[in-house]
Amino acid sequence: MNDAFIWDAERASRTGVAEAVFCQGKANGDLIAIIEHNLSQQRPLFMTRLSQEQWCALLEQQQSILDYDPHSQTAMANVKANSVDTKSVCIVCAGTSDLSVAKEAQRSLLFNGVTAPLIADVGVAGLWRLMDKIELIRQYKMIIAVAGMEGALFSVLAGLVTAPIVAVPSAVGYGVSAHGQAALSSALASCSPGIMTVNINNGFGAAACVVKTLRQFKQLEDQ
Amino acid sequence: MNDAFIWDAERASRTGVAEAVFCQGKANGDLIAIIEHNLSQQRPLFMTRLSQEQWCALLEQQQSILDYDPHSQTAMANVKANSVDTKSVCIVCAGTSDLSVAKEAQRSLLFNGVTAPLIADVGVAGLWRLMDKIELIRQYKMIIAVAGMEGALFSVLAGLVTAPIVAVPSAVGYGVSAHGQAALSSALASCSPGIMTVNINNGFGAAACVVKTLRQFKQLEDQ
Amino acid sequence: MNDAFIWDAERASRTGVAEAVFCQGKANGDLIAIIEHNLSQQRPLFMTRLSQEQWCALLEQQQSILDYDPHSQTAMANVKANSVDTKSVCIVCAGTSDLSVAKEAQRSLLFNGVTAPLIADVGVAGLWRLMDKIELIRQYKMIIAVAGMEGALFSVLAGLVTAPIVAVPSAVGYGVSAHGQAALSSALASCSPGIMTVNINNGFGAAACVVKTLRQFKQLEDQ
Amino acid sequence: MNDAFIWDAERASRTGVAEAVFCQGKANGDLIAIIEHNLSQQRPLFMTRLSQEQWCALLEQQQSILDYDPHSQTAMANVKANSVDTKSVCIVCAGTSDLSVAKEAQRSLLFNGVTAPLIADVGVAGLWRLMDKIELIRQYKMIIAVAGMEGALFSVLAGLVTAPIVAVPSAVGYGVSAHGQAALSSALASCSPGIMTVNINNGFGAAACVVKTLRQFKQLEDQ
Amino acid sequence: MNDAFIWDAERASRTGVAEAVFCQGKANGDLIAIIEHNLSQQRPLFMTRLSQEQWCALLEQQQSILDYDPHSQTAMANVKANSVDTKSVCIVCAGTSDLSVAKEAQRSLLFNGVTAPLIADVGVAGLWRLMDKIELIRQYKMIIAVAGMEGALFSVLAGLVTAPIVAVPSAVGYGVSAHGQAALSSALASCSPGIMTVNINNGFGAAACVVKTLRQFKQLEDQ
Amino acid sequence: MNDAFIWDAERASRTGVAEAVFCQGKANGDLIAIIEHNLSQQRPLFMTRLSQEQWCALLEQQQSILDYDPHSQTAMANVKANSVDTKSVCIVCAGTSDLSVAKEAQRSLLFNGVTAPLIADVGVAGLWRLMDKIELIRQYKMIIAVAGMEGALFSVLAGLVTAPIVAVPSAVGYGVSAHGQAALSSALASCSPGIMTVNINNGFGAAACVVKTLRQFKQLEDQ
Amino acid sequence: MNDAFIWDAERASRTGVAEAVFCQGKANGDLIAIIEHNLSQQRPLFMTRLSQEQWCALLEQQQSILDYDPHSQTAMANVKANSVDTKSVCIVCAGTSDLSVAKEAQRSLLFNGVTAPLIADVGVAGLWRLMDKIELIRQYKMIIAVAGMEGALFSVLAGLVTAPIVAVPSAVGYGVSAHGQAALSSALASCSPGIMTVNINNGFGAAACVVKTLRQFKQLEDQ
Amino acid sequence: MNDAFIWDAERASRTGVAEAVFCQGKANGDLIAIIEHNLSQQRPLFMTRLSQEQWCALLEQQQSILDYDPHSQTAMANVKANSVDTKSVCIVCAGTSDLSVAKEAQRSLLFNGVTAPLIADVGVAGLWRLMDKIELIRQYKMIIAVAGMEGALFSVLAGLVTAPIVAVPSAVGYGVSAHGQAALSSALASCSPGIMTVNINNGFGAAACVVKTLRQFKQLEDQ
Repeated sequence: MNDAFIWDAERASRTGVAEAVFCQGKANGDLIAIIEHNLSQQRPLFMTRLSQEQWCALLEQQQSILDYDPHSQTAMANVKANSVDTKSVCIVCAGTSDLSVAKEAQRSLLFNGVTAPLIADVGVAGLWRLMDKIELIRQYKMIIAVAGMEGALFSVLAGLVTAPIVAVPSAVGYGVSAHGQAALSSALASCSPGIMTVNINNGFGAAACVVKTLRQFKQLEDQ
Repeated sequence: MNDAFIWDAERASRTGVAEAVFCQGKANGDLIAIIEHNLSQQRPLFMTRLSQEQWCALLEQQQSILDYDPHSQTAMANVKANSVDTKSVCIVCAGTSDLSVAKEAQRSLLFNGVTAPLIADVGVAGLWRLMDKIELIRQYKMIIAVAGMEGALFSVLAGLVTAPIVAVPSAVGYGVSAHGQAALSSALASCSPGIMTVNINNGFGAAACVVKTLRQFKQLEDQ
Repeated sequence: MNDAFIWDAERASRTGVAEAVFCQGKANGDLIAIIEHNLSQQRPLFMTRLSQEQWCALLEQQQSILDYDPHSQTAMANVKANSVDTKSVCIVCAGTSDLSVAKEAQRSLLFNGVTAPLIADVGVAGLWRLMDKIELIRQYKMIIAVAGMEGALFSVLAGLVTAPIVAVPSAVGYGVSAHGQAALSSALASCSPGIMTVNINNGFGAAACVVKTLRQFKQLEDQ
Repeated sequence: MNDAFIWDAERASRTGVAEAVFCQGKANGDLIAIIEHNLSQQRPLFMTRLSQEQWCALLEQQQSILDYDPHSQTAMANVKANSVDTKSVCIVCAGTSDLSVAKEAQRSLLFNGVTAPLIADVGVAGLWRLMDKIELIRQYKMIIAVAGMEGALFSVLAGLVTAPIVAVPSAVGYGVSAHGQAALSSALASCSPGIMTVNINNGFGAAACVVKTLRQFKQLEDQ
Repeated sequence: MNDAFIWDAERASRTGVAEAVFCQGKANGDLIAIIEHNLSQQRPLFMTRLSQEQWCALLEQQQSILDYDPHSQTAMANVKANSVDTKSVCIVCAGTSDLSVAKEAQRSLLFNGVTAPLIADVGVAGLWRLMDKIELIRQYKMIIAVAGMEGALFSVLAGLVTAPIVAVPSAVGYGVSAHGQAALSSALASCSPGIMTVNINNGFGAAACVVKTLRQFKQLEDQ
Repeated sequence: MNDAFIWDAERASRTGVAEAVFCQGKANGDLIAIIEHNLSQQRPLFMTRLSQEQWCALLEQQQSILDYDPHSQTAMANVKANSVDTKSVCIVCAGTSDLSVAKEAQRSLLFNGVTAPLIADVGVAGLWRLMDKIELIRQYKMIIAVAGMEGALFSVLAGLVTAPIVAVPSAVGYGVSAHGQAALSSALASCSPGIMTVNINNGFGAAACVVKTLRQFKQLEDQ
Repeated sequence: MNDAFIWDAERASRTGVAEAVFCQGKANGDLIAIIEHNLSQQRPLFMTRLSQEQWCALLEQQQSILDYDPHSQTAMANVKANSVDTKSVCIVCAGTSDLSVAKEAQRSLLFNGVTAPLIADVGVAGLWRLMDKIELIRQYKMIIAVAGMEGALFSVLAGLVTAPIVAVPSAVGYGVSAHGQAALSSALASCSPGIMTVNINNGFGAAACVVKTLRQFKQLEDQ
Repeated sequence: MNDAFIWDAERASRTGVAEAVFCQGKANGDLIAIIEHNLSQQRPLFMTRLSQEQWCALLEQQQSILDYDPHSQTAMANVKANSVDTKSVCIVCAGTSDLSVAKEAQRSLLFNGVTAPLIADVGVAGLWRLMDKIELIRQYKMIIAVAGMEGALFSVLAGLVTAPIVAVPSAVGYGVSAHGQAALSSALASCSPGIMTVNINNGFGAAACVVKTLRQFKQLEDQ
């Protein structure tokens, strides 16, 4: 077997976060082999960007074991028992179009043992909707914020809370905001201190950053 | 004399806004001739991007007639009597670094007979500062907003007022916001309807749009 | 029900323009729920970027109530009685390829109670065609102009009329004008004062700006 | 006095990080007034991007109170007593050219009560230099990493430690890496999870993120 | 002597246009040697982008032979007798800021034996000014048009004349039109057929294209 | 009938080149109407970017009259009698992938009464192939050159012939040459004088420029 | 037959590397003719970017002669006998997603008589995996490295080996690394000397560079 | 002493090329210390991008030991005895403006024991000049080519020689070729196989690649 398929057992202990399989562009045969290898050893398995076409091409027995969510294009198996919501992190998103990215973050956290609520549709076009939720949001130690278009949510939020914000620009919009570029620039150029940015649509990456932080500060057990 | 220097008398009546002299890159000799030609006919004269070096090179007698503001790099002469503040337009800016652009807008309005207050330093990093001024801002029929960096002010403001907003992205910032590009994208890609955008740093252009609108709706006399 | 689906009743009164549902990228189930929620309460409903595939997936009863235009990809229901053409705004477009964007603007105005004529195919390649219509265009208080390719129409028009122009760059063209970038730059960089720009293809946004302006100057009743 | 100059006393308590004065582009007169206002009230004061020219233009008495570092272009006054190095955060940088940005981060932390060592010149061109320091680096709960050119340090580091990394791309390099764009892309696109990015050269911003995180996890007293 | 300095005698006969010395970035010593070499052989000599600093560093005897124009930064010597204006080509420019580029074209034509009038300040912001000159412009077989900002002049002109247009975008403007990019895109993306484009600010290149065309059609003697 | 469909009879006489119908993005119904209108009046008709899908949707009777070439996506009807090859213009292209663009140019010339040979596959990777054809190419008064990838053909050709070159960058290539950007830059930035550039893939535009030039120099009858 | 289809027999001897047929965008008919022409003369034939659709459209007899690999989209026929692995070059790639590009390089080498092993999945996110293979890699005289996303592998590798590296950025990733741009910048801007870069996804080009180098240093027979 | 200043003795043996000091942006004090440290140990020292201002600030005794070339901004000391020109590598450049980059490459080779001739001014605008030198160039095993503007030289050269080419795009030109971007794209997108590219202006990097290759193939002794 190609050693590219061998699970990197050292990864979690060395970096504090388990390896995930990035499925985009992988052949069906390769995906089946990767899943087979990991499930046969009862290892935890997390897959991102697993399209519905790829999902349908998996073995029936693999489908029965994997928990697949088509909206966030993630699948997982052999997950450890989840913790309850300990107010460590919440996910905030600007509009319903950001939900697929927000859910990728939410399920990535879940796989690592962190339960996080998703507070949707608090974009700044209707500031009163954000203000209605701000006390709830303030209870969390870290915030993952997802926003597309002009990404003004990042700046407004950072000016209202003491928690650091992990900003995920989403590829929602058209014209100058197509592909998430305008939201990315807004996250990086914000006049509000306290925003850290990950790549466009990278819900998994935001979750990984939060998990590493929580482990460092003993809010989460080591793997 | 080069006909490039001849004042375009038809401009104001045809387009509803008087011509301004864009001084950037013009030779001192050309500027002196343009001023001479206009002042000799008692015409109103407005100059933008007139640097302090250019100003110093003008004739002493020209300097004595022109009202020059080095911060906004504008000069004017033979201005009609100004109207009082009729709550038609206010200028809002995110930070003190935006003041030179905001003042270019303010003086351009003044030259066209419109008095507009300048409400500074209401950037979204401290949302409470904007909220303190929001009732004042809501009294105006149109708003010119100036912001650099990530330009989140445009979206927040548009979600809080009924007035249309003329957004002027400013070249304040560094890295991804250098040269005003991030603020420009935010203005165009905003999730809040009601924002119209002019070029980066174009305070004069924002004022011209407001003047044309006010004339159309009989809030301002024709020229 | 997810509160993302709840109609924001405060929006119209706070910002002077009713909320519209941006359908691009939304799941069919979500769209059906949003329509259901709003229609059950007899609320006005406006939808943009509703593709023909999405339209076909709606409930038959919803299709019978909604007025859908496939060319502009807009749908509406429970619209108030329209005003007649009061010469407040006209829509001008450079070529027939710009019609879908122009119609998005026209129907967005209609939904807000403003009737606006659409003057098509007056691109500057044949200046005499624009000159034939210029007296007609001059009768309107504001102009929405739609143009792709190099967007020269914006500058030419602004030099010929006293009305302010809301420029909508359209994604018509190929090579350097692909995706509307060249037309966007032309609108922003124009040597003619009086042009305010919205995002590429944003016919709805241009209409919202005009509606807010008309409300401010009492040309249109408050919502 | 212009209210833009008034210290925002609410900032620190609301957002967990004190306001800093961004000096780039501000006039000497404005800087003198801002310092005057704050020092007269014994408030802590932190200034970024204060050039040597600006520093020389300050009042002599102001210069005697402020602790100015020309390399990082930062100044501070009325700083609280510093904590000792509690292994909460270290700063790592790829080469000596990154030192000015790294020092901006170091002094920003200091102003907020956090002592952080600076581990310089561990760029990946000589991987053995990084490996010599890796056990030292692993003792810290968070890492601020500064790198220009291609920014490969971010990925290598993230694969070797359990701490989350706050990446600061620096504008070191020429050709395709001019202005820090290549390093920024590398930080965002990294194949190693656990990297959060701030704007190019934004040492202050990286420090602010760390301070907010430490406060949230009770590693640092509230302000 | 470095053969880089040897005049390429074959150039004119092979390509129909004499070689010009591009001075930007060349050392003073190199420029002096190049001039020396050419003048000693009574060859025609044309130099572009010769800054005033470079001009001052030349030998006094060289300055006395060369005809230098600081505005267009061109110098020439040993020019053949000029033809009179035979209505073969005119140069049109949008504003006075475009004059330096227009003059580089005019003098490059002159060096090649072509007299061309310069029709300035016919930008589209005041269309009536262009219309006043259109009959004059229509008398020429080819047109060199120079415009910066949004470059709408190219499209308007191409729709009004039968002559082909050589478009020279100029680096006049700021924000999105900085460095001539918006004008370049407009020239290339024009909806009006008949526009051929050269590099930004390349007045010399436009002239060379016209000279080659005139030679091909026997409007100009071979060199 | 929408006046957008009315043939612009003035176009040819005013600008020296007949209007062409740009079909990309037009609805089938609109195309059928435009063809109907023109054919009913025996007018010459030229259509560009008419895809095979659009062609199949036309009326059978229309298909029988139109001369359609799927490779260049052009169609024409009512063409005047062609002239023979008078050595006025030839079309040169770098590789077989450039043929569709080269043929768009060739057929556009044909529609305007100009026969031009197409000399294919003379890219600079095998310079001897170009040198084999160079004497043939030198017989023509103007050259249309089509090249993608890095577009080096433009510079090499311009250094070898006395004819002016109309460069058409083609969207052939991947990576940094995707979409024709590298070839476009090469055409504009060439160190060889005598190159005039049109938009990427714009074979029709290159032909229009040549037709206008030939008409001006009486190599072709007026329309 | 169109001479574009004639095999360029001079190519190999003049440039040290045989011509390959770039199939992307070529019509099926053209491909069949090119293959026919070459096979009929028993010439070696190498084809790149031959999609599965194009492959299926070839003649059955052609399919039986050609060795086609769908993953790398390459086909070859009449290949000379291969040499054994002489430790001249190895191919290293960061992840399994880079395999199609790596295989294009591997098969291009094979066609030119060079056997090269492919060492996959040694991305820097798990540096220990690269270190496990580094002694193996050090045995080769040249290295072809393929990496997408942020391309940190190039810099790390160049700091660990004495062999020069031919870097092939791959279009693996999303957001800022979409289309291979971030990896390309990293290869060019690397702080480690010894990296030479080819276009994004250009496995064939990397192989051609290695083949030319090996021929020059007599590690491979001339063609 | 800051360990950033300590010479990395392992570098040469590990990577096959000695470390060079990149001086751009370094403070005078740091440069003096680095030189001091290295000279005191009789180590070979090579410095790149050492500006004339920086050179003047060095200690007089350091200036007397270092061999400084202001045109290429390089300095060296303690260089080993040079080899004679063994026909291993030549440097070719398009024009005299490329000489500073070409000389950086030449002196970097010299420092590593490789003598290489510099063949200047063979740009493709006058192809005959290149053809005059082509037999000379063909005698070398590798070629470093330097070109700015559109960089067509790379493709032409690669089609004429069997040696691999290391392309150095130079920042010579204006408009679309400003900063070397057009030349860089041409090098990467070339239709001629056998071109490997380094960063814009990176003469040192090209030399390092050649040195590593020569060492690997025993054309040069190990360090």
